[in-house]
Amino acid sequence: MSHGVKKRKLDKSRQDRLYFDSYSDVTIHEEMIADHERTNTYRTAILRNGESIRGKVVLDVGAGTGVLSMFCVQAGARKVYAVEACSIAEQAMKIVRHNHMEDRVEVIRGTVETVDLPETVDVIVSEWMGYALLHESMLNSVLYARDKWLKPGGLILPSRAELYIAPISDPVVEDRLHFWFAVKDQYGIDMSCMSDFARRCIMNSDITVNTVTVEDVLSHPARFAELDLGSVTVDELRAVKGHFRCESFGSAAVNAFCVWFTVTFPCPDKPLVLSTSPFKPETHWKQAVLYLDAPVDVMQDTPVTGEVRMYPSEDSARHVCIHLDFTIGQNKRQAKTFSIPDWSSES
Amino acid sequence: MSHGVKKRKLDKSRQDRLYFDSYSDVTIHEEMIADHERTNTYRTAILRNGESIRGKVVLDVGAGTGVLSMFCVQAGARKVYAVEACSIAEQAMKIVRHNHMEDRVEVIRGTVETVDLPETVDVIVSEWMGYALLHESMLNSVLYARDKWLKPGGLILPSRAELYIAPISDPVVEDRLHFWFAVKDQYGIDMSCMSDFARRCIMNSDITVNTVTVEDVLSHPARFAELDLGSVTVDELRAVKGHFRCESFGSAAVNAFCVWFTVTFPCPDKPLVLSTSPFKPETHWKQAVLYLDAPVDVMQDTPVTGEVRMYPSEDSARHVCIHLDFTIGQNKRQAKTFSIPDWSSES
Repeated sequence: MSHGVKKRKLDKSRQDRLYFDSYSDVTIHEEMIADHERTNTYRTAILRNGESIRGKVVLDVGAGTGVLSMFCVQAGARKVYAVEACSIAEQAMKIVRHNHMEDRVEVIRGTVETVDLPETVDVIVSEWMGYALLHESMLNSVLYARDKWLKPGGLILPSRAELYIAPISDPVVEDRLHFWFAVKDQYGIDMSCMSDFARRCIMNSDITVNTVTVEDVLSHPARFAELDLGSVTVDELRAVKGHFRCESFGSAAVNAFCVWFTVTFPCPDKPLVLSTSPFKPETHWKQAVLYLDAPVDVMQDTPVTGEVRMYPSEDSARHVCIHLDFTIGQNKRQAKTFSIPDWSSES
Repeated sequence: MSHGVKKRKLDKSRQDRLYFDSYSDVTIHEEMIADHERTNTYRTAILRNGESIRGKVVLDVGAGTGVLSMFCVQAGARKVYAVEACSIAEQAMKIVRHNHMEDRVEVIRGTVETVDLPETVDVIVSEWMGYALLHESMLNSVLYARDKWLKPGGLILPSRAELYIAPISDPVVEDRLHFWFAVKDQYGIDMSCMSDFARRCIMNSDITVNTVTVEDVLSHPARFAELDLGSVTVDELRAVKGHFRCESFGSAAVNAFCVWFTVTFPCPDKPLVLSTSPFKPETHWKQAVLYLDAPVDVMQDTPVTGEVRMYPSEDSARHVCIHLDFTIGQNKRQAKTFSIPDWSSES
C-alpha cells in the first residue's frame, strides 16, 4: 500500500490521461483526421497531383485508417498499397470495402521493412511526421520504402521538410510562478518560497508540446534544417542540425525556444505547404517548446544565435533529443539538451 | 526504429502529458492548493475545531507542502508533526521556516508506518482521498496512524467518507461516434463503419476521471457506502461495497455510471462537508465515470438498481477496481469490472 506516500494525486496530465487513454486507439486516428490543416492539405496535394497519380501505383507508408490511400483513389490511382503495422489496419480494410475501393486499395498489415509488394511504385505518400518533426517519426521507414520500392524519378508526397526555431516568452511560466505568491492572500500562509522549486520543475529539460501564441513569439522564424526526401539518407537523420540567427522584435524576457516544422508537396502549379508554425492555423502537432533554465531579457534587435542538433535518444531510437547551443545578446553562450519524457518508465 | 508503426501520434492525453509532465512534482501541489473547495473546506474545518486543536498535538499524514499543518498552527496547535514521504517534504520545511512556524511544525520525512514520534497525538488531520475516493489513497496509512499514535477519543479530520453513484448520459460519447459519420461530407470518404470500433474504445472498462455536467446526471445520487474513520479497519477497506437504487428523472439513454465521494468534518456547530458531487462546485477529483458496453434507454422513473464493490487491484494494491452489478428497468442484469489504467505498463 501507499505508506503515506502522497503520489495518488495525479497532475493535470495524468487526469487527462485517465480521460483519454480510455479511448485508446481510436482517439489518435480521430485527432489526425479531425486535424483539418493536416488532412485537407494532404487531400488537396494528392488531388492536385492527379496527373502523376492517375493510372499509377502508390505506396502509403503507415496508412492508419487508409484515408490517404483513398484520397489517392479519388485522384485516380490504379492501385494503392496501404501498409500499416498496427491493428488499425483491420479498420482500414473495413473502410476500404465500405467505400467499394477494395479493387484499388490493398491494405497490407505489416511493416514496410518486411512486406513484399508485387511491383515497384510510382508514388509514395506518407504522413510520417511526429512532434518536433522527428519524434517517434516513421521517416526512416519512408526512406527504406523509397530505396526499395519507388521507381527512379518517382514522386514522394510530401517531398521536403523544414525545421524552424524562434525565441519565445511563455506567459504560463510566470503565471504559474505567481500562483505561489498569491497563496498568502487567500489562506494566510506565505508560500512564495515555492517559486524557486516551481521554476526548476517548469523550466526543465523536457520537450514540451504546446500551442504557442503568436504574440509570445519574439522574432521572425529562423530555418535551421531542411530535408529533401528524395535524397536524404537514414544516416543523415542521426544528426539533423543547423545554425540560426534571430533578432528580437522588442523588449521581453526570453524563457524558451519554440521549434516547429513544415512539409512541402510538389504540385504542378505551385508547391503546397503544410505548416505547423505558430503563425499558421493550429495543428495537432502544436509546437515543441524548449525552456531555458532562467529567463533572459532582450531588447529591440537583440541578436539570438545558436545551433540546434536533433538526434535519436540513446535509450530509445524513436525518441528525439534536441541539443541547443545559444547566445542571447551579450550574455554568455549556454547549452541545454532536451528530450521527450519517456512515459513507459513512469509508474 | 519505428518499422512503419504509426505510434508516434500521441492522443490528446499524451499531448497533455508532454505539457504537464514537464512540470512534474510542482503541478500536483499547485493543483491541490488551487482547488479552493478542497483547501478552503480543510482550512475552515480546522479553524472551526479550534477548541479541540488549541494547545494540542496534531499529526498530519501525508503533509505535502505542509499547508494543512500550518492551518493547524493558525488554529492554535501546540505542535504539529507533518509526516511526508516524498521529497516535497524539503519544500514543506522551507515554507514552515518562511512562516516562522518551525517551533510548532516539525516536518518529518518518512512514511507514517516507520516514523517515530516523541508523543501520541490529540488530532489526526489528513487529505488522503484519491480518485473515486480509494484510488492510490493513503487511507490505510491514516488508519495505521490512528491505531498507533492517536490518543483514545482523539479527533480525526475528516472523520467520515461516503460514496455515491448515479446513472448518467455522457454526450461526449455520442459526439465522438458522430464524428465518423461526418467525415464523408468533408472528404468524400465514408468512415461511418469506424463507429463500432470507436464505441468499443470509448466505452471500455477503464475508470475515466472527468467532470460530469449536472444536466447529464439521470437520477438523484444513491449512497452505497460509508466509512467511519474512527472505526473502519484496513481489512474492511479490502472490499468497500453496497447496494444502490435510483429512479430515472426522465427519458434518456444511460451510457455510464458516475461515482463520487464526500468527506465530513465534525464541527462544534454543524458538520462541514467536502463534496465531489457533480451537483456541487468542481474539485480536482472531478468524478469517476464507468461506461456501460452500450447505452440503455430509460424513461421517467425507470428503476436502476445494483451493487458496487470497490477493492484494491491484484496487480497493484494502490490501484482501485470497481465492480458493478446492475439492472436497468426490465433489461437483464449486467456486470462489468473497471480499473484505472496502469500507465507504468504503457510504452
